[in-house]
Amino acid sequence: MNNKASGQDKLEEIRLDLALEARELASQTYGDQIPGVTMEQSEQDGIRMSRIDVESDEGARAMGKLKGHYITIEVPGLRNKDSDLQDRVAKAFAKEFERFLEKVNIPKDAKVLVIGLGNWNVTPDALGPIVVENVMVTRHYFELMPDQVSPGYRQVSAIAPGVLGTTGIETSEVVQGVVEKSRPDLVIAVDALASKAIDRVNTTIQIADTGIHPGSGIGNKRKGVTQEILGVPVIAIGVPTVVYASTIVNNSIEMVMQHFRQQTSNTEYIFGALDKMNEQERLAMVREVLNPLGHDLLVTPKEIDQFIEDIANIIANGLNASLHEAVDVDNVAAYTH
Amino acid sequence: MNNKASGQDKLEEIRLDLALEARELASQTYGDQIPGVTMEQSEQDGIRMSRIDVESDEGARAMGKLKGHYITIEVPGLRNKDSDLQDRVAKAFAKEFERFLEKVNIPKDAKVLVIGLGNWNVTPDALGPIVVENVMVTRHYFELMPDQVSPGYRQVSAIAPGVLGTTGIETSEVVQGVVEKSRPDLVIAVDALASKAIDRVNTTIQIADTGIHPGSGIGNKRKGVTQEILGVPVIAIGVPTVVYASTIVNNSIEMVMQHFRQQTSNTEYIFGALDKMNEQERLAMVREVLNPLGHDLLVTPKEIDQFIEDIANIIANGLNASLHEAVDVDNVAAYTH
Amino acid sequence: MNNKASGQDKLEEIRLDLALEARELASQTYGDQIPGVTMEQSEQDGIRMSRIDVESDEGARAMGKLKGHYITIEVPGLRNKDSDLQDRVAKAFAKEFERFLEKVNIPKDAKVLVIGLGNWNVTPDALGPIVVENVMVTRHYFELMPDQVSPGYRQVSAIAPGVLGTTGIETSEVVQGVVEKSRPDLVIAVDALASKAIDRVNTTIQIADTGIHPGSGIGNKRKGVTQEILGVPVIAIGVPTVVYASTIVNNSIEMVMQHFRQQTSNTEYIFGALDKMNEQERLAMVREVLNPLGHDLLVTPKEIDQFIEDIANIIANGLNASLHEAVDVDNVAAYTH
Amino acid sequence: MNNKASGQDKLEEIRLDLALEARELASQTYGDQIPGVTMEQSEQDGIRMSRIDVESDEGARAMGKLKGHYITIEVPGLRNKDSDLQDRVAKAFAKEFERFLEKVNIPKDAKVLVIGLGNWNVTPDALGPIVVENVMVTRHYFELMPDQVSPGYRQVSAIAPGVLGTTGIETSEVVQGVVEKSRPDLVIAVDALASKAIDRVNTTIQIADTGIHPGSGIGNKRKGVTQEILGVPVIAIGVPTVVYASTIVNNSIEMVMQHFRQQTSNTEYIFGALDKMNEQERLAMVREVLNPLGHDLLVTPKEIDQFIEDIANIIANGLNASLHEAVDVDNVAAYTH
Repeated sequence: MNNKASGQDKLEEIRLDLALEARELASQTYGDQIPGVTMEQSEQDGIRMSRIDVESDEGARAMGKLKGHYITIEVPGLRNKDSDLQDRVAKAFAKEFERFLEKVNIPKDAKVLVIGLGNWNVTPDALGPIVVENVMVTRHYFELMPDQVSPGYRQVSAIAPGVLGTTGIETSEVVQGVVEKSRPDLVIAVDALASKAIDRVNTTIQIADTGIHPGSGIGNKRKGVTQEILGVPVIAIGVPTVVYASTIVNNSIEMVMQHFRQQTSNTEYIFGALDKMNEQERLAMVREVLNPLGHDLLVTPKEIDQFIEDIANIIANGLNASLHEAVDVDNVAAYTH
Repeated sequence: MNNKASGQDKLEEIRLDLALEARELASQTYGDQIPGVTMEQSEQDGIRMSRIDVESDEGARAMGKLKGHYITIEVPGLRNKDSDLQDRVAKAFAKEFERFLEKVNIPKDAKVLVIGLGNWNVTPDALGPIVVENVMVTRHYFELMPDQVSPGYRQVSAIAPGVLGTTGIETSEVVQGVVEKSRPDLVIAVDALASKAIDRVNTTIQIADTGIHPGSGIGNKRKGVTQEILGVPVIAIGVPTVVYASTIVNNSIEMVMQHFRQQTSNTEYIFGALDKMNEQERLAMVREVLNPLGHDLLVTPKEIDQFIEDIANIIANGLNASLHEAVDVDNVAAYTH
Repeated sequence: MNNKASGQDKLEEIRLDLALEARELASQTYGDQIPGVTMEQSEQDGIRMSRIDVESDEGARAMGKLKGHYITIEVPGLRNKDSDLQDRVAKAFAKEFERFLEKVNIPKDAKVLVIGLGNWNVTPDALGPIVVENVMVTRHYFELMPDQVSPGYRQVSAIAPGVLGTTGIETSEVVQGVVEKSRPDLVIAVDALASKAIDRVNTTIQIADTGIHPGSGIGNKRKGVTQEILGVPVIAIGVPTVVYASTIVNNSIEMVMQHFRQQTSNTEYIFGALDKMNEQERLAMVREVLNPLGHDLLVTPKEIDQFIEDIANIIANGLNASLHEAVDVDNVAAYTH
Repeated sequence: MNNKASGQDKLEEIRLDLALEARELASQTYGDQIPGVTMEQSEQDGIRMSRIDVESDEGARAMGKLKGHYITIEVPGLRNKDSDLQDRVAKAFAKEFERFLEKVNIPKDAKVLVIGLGNWNVTPDALGPIVVENVMVTRHYFELMPDQVSPGYRQVSAIAPGVLGTTGIETSEVVQGVVEKSRPDLVIAVDALASKAIDRVNTTIQIADTGIHPGSGIGNKRKGVTQEILGVPVIAIGVPTVVYASTIVNNSIEMVMQHFRQQTSNTEYIFGALDKMNEQERLAMVREVLNPLGHDLLVTPKEIDQFIEDIANIIANGLNASLHEAVDVDNVAAYTH
């Protein structure tokens, strides 16, 4: 009955947490111009930014994602422990996040509460709590000695509310309680996500102004962490840290077939009817087989301990620099450990 | 500005967190019969129980402790890693805690919220969070599938709210928010304490029905975690995990003097006026010297990592057995890791 | 240049670390009677024991495994955190290991050195170091106060030598140095393995008298930890803690095809030529596609932190009980934390 | 019998691990000019360097320290988590260590083995293992692909041999075995020390060319890690991370008396015969009282987790910069995590 660490995250369906992945899927149906959805991409020094805006209900339906603004930062090089690249990503994240705050009309002095969702004791789920540990909090100085706070800082607080399996309380309720008492103007919720592609794990950061919805994230959060529930805007920062075994399989089958398609036109000879299924059908088939056998586990790369720490530092550094004017993007590393 | 791990626990004065220590001190003035205070002691197999009731305002003044019921469990042998003894202490704690719940009129089906005060990342302050990690939570089963909960369990939830220095929010406010949302009938707050005697560190557990008051505990909790603030009874469970350098010094001077008193009547010859100071005066002198030099640190035994884990397991096991009838004192170890 | 945590474990080929898996594969060619290989299986209370003896060079060639004795303990239920089951597995392991020591002619007073291979800081590779941490060492008592050692104990020492990527020294050389100085009669090497089946991860323990050979295990050990090199017998204890993404894929394709084979005879219609490939061909194809893209990662279940700790405790408890007569299988838990 | 974490470090006598402290004590007898001992001090930006050379047997006797060269780096400010200061200390350490290597005639291409003494699982004793984790090892590149090693690197390897209580093998023997197999030209041994002053804990680094001798350090190392035993020079790097309760007491009594001496000439009135004892006599008295009661614990500041990590990073960064010409003092942070 007390499965603390075991997670209890029987997710009902494979969610596409990343808007970028949802867009890829949708473009199989709609082609490159998905109605009500705009995308802009740029790349510099190994860091790729995709800015996707889901502008209409039609776009939301097509994408299977809520209306809102999504930014994806992809850095395949994060796989190789490279401190210089990590610094550059922290800076890029800070700059992009600052711009995002402006875009969604968050004032420069808005009081911020950073929520680190997930479970301390399950490494791939510990992203949020580790970010919270390294975020520079200032709210108590404003509350207790307001005249001594230097200019260039805003009120920031941070909390890791735990997960349903270890608290017995819905995360959403804990956050609601904290918001009601501490009265922030903005909530930033950091969470670990599931990806459908193993190469996105720990190399991708998503920023969105949609909040965190039931079934998102890899932990237990059936009620959302959203503006509707909390009464203040919620920006979600997510990093895929796990993949379903079934998506690895399905993805790989697709890759194998693409590989052979480049060599022969007669893939039907090799793959039979499999070749004619679309991705959803094939995934359904794979999961139909894997699930009853208990094989559809969430998996994570072997080096997850180091990856999680690196990317949590990037996000914490980036948040510190973008939330406090007095914290320069170049001295950002000084504030975390 | 962001001294996360450094603690910010400039405590104003040396508090006697343990009622037992307060009583010892008070008896220097009042002798063995402190007015308005009763004490009963028993000892079995190396486990000593002291039950102190502060029954009147006069007693409270004499003790410098709030009116209420205090239980102290002293087990010097916990210093030596002895699994059998640890099991026996868990059982003794469970039995005593059950009795305590009855004594302070907590009904058998009261919904319980366990609060683990303190900081994950500062080992001697991590007692509360580690207990929370090992407490068996059930509230979500009652909420989500009430008809499937076996008899013999009560609703238990648990949360580690962090400390002011890492959250920027008063612990008391976080707890208030969580209580308002989750509506327990009883709060059990687990916290690390400061002791004045190094041999009590990690060998003593105190249970009290007085809540946790400003300045108690070694972390940052200036507002209390009390019935007045939360609206439900608060039972505090505390374990001394640190001592002030100044109390070690003062204590040791006392021990040195006692040692010589047994050998000679002329201790004045050896100790001069020091011999005539009472404990408070001597402590004031020691602190006057140590403090400005920054030497009055809180210290903890070198083996703190292991001690904290052992005693946190004892408390979590004991709570699990005493809160759930279906959890037997003998199978108690099965529920924690 | 300093990729400490990144592992550097570019393994040249997918090794079948488990004899049981090698046997399954070989039986696709040889049927149930593999020449020179005997197997005996038993099952009790959810614990399955397979005892495989590779008795001739012919058997070794057929299996792709060295001549020797292999025991596999499979406990699918370990996935669900169940303390009772864990205790039963520790006892079963202890009993089986004791028998194994007799079978391979290790005397009751042989001095034992336990080697915990792998990397502390990479959770799925930390099995060996965690076992070492919990093994009861006694050698120093025998060396320093031999007349005070109670009967029923033998000389046990234990060391975690680190991995090539963090030490710069071949593990095999470190072990050799330690063996030459400490002169054990037997080395027990504990290591994390790669499996080809995700459901074997953290649910299977293998015992073998073949030592650890170049390319075995998931770390960096190009020289072996073997009797040839160390001059004393080496018993290897391994637990699969990771799988290659490619084996998940390949395995799943197989499962999907088997699933459909049960429903239709015309699987060629569905799977084309894929259906006619044997497992090795299909795996080669999957890896050909995944590898150049860097997708053939080693992955581990999300809950690896808890799994590793549980199974390390089982092995440490089991070793303590089987190595020391005075340590009873029932009091075994008392010696570890 | 298996007190892994409990330490087993019954040290026979209070050692003065720091030459600086030994010198202070000796100067009570000899005055500022201790025969055969020279000292030179400098201070910059809150970092104080003391270079003590014990040049004759007479000096060694007077100091109670071996002949050799000692450097002490004192940085009281390390108490306040200040990243800039930490960077400056790493650079100062690197520069000083490079000079020290020259002074003791270590060639620029000497192969180095870094030994991290102490116990992973006892935070104040984990300094050595944490440094080892962050040292940049290169030996395997030289061994396995010598033509691909860039200029400016030397051969460095690193190992954490564990402590007697958890391995059952003398640390010295493990190191001897590793040295014989890996053949370094120089051993650098990093260890946690005991100090007699609580304000030196985690703020002081000592470098010495005397190796590590029986009874030094806070762990179990009765045989030395010295040139005599290993056959190559041994440089010891030590940081005090613990103090004896007895030295806190004794020190404080001294401070209290000094305090009053400044106010009155008649300290005998206040302190009696205590005033006339010298430091050694008083310490003997304090320990006579504390020891039988088991009160003479080794203690460490409450914030030890953070302190240890910070100072281990300083040392690892400093070593990386001073051992490899290609690693610049300014990019030094890039190589550790």
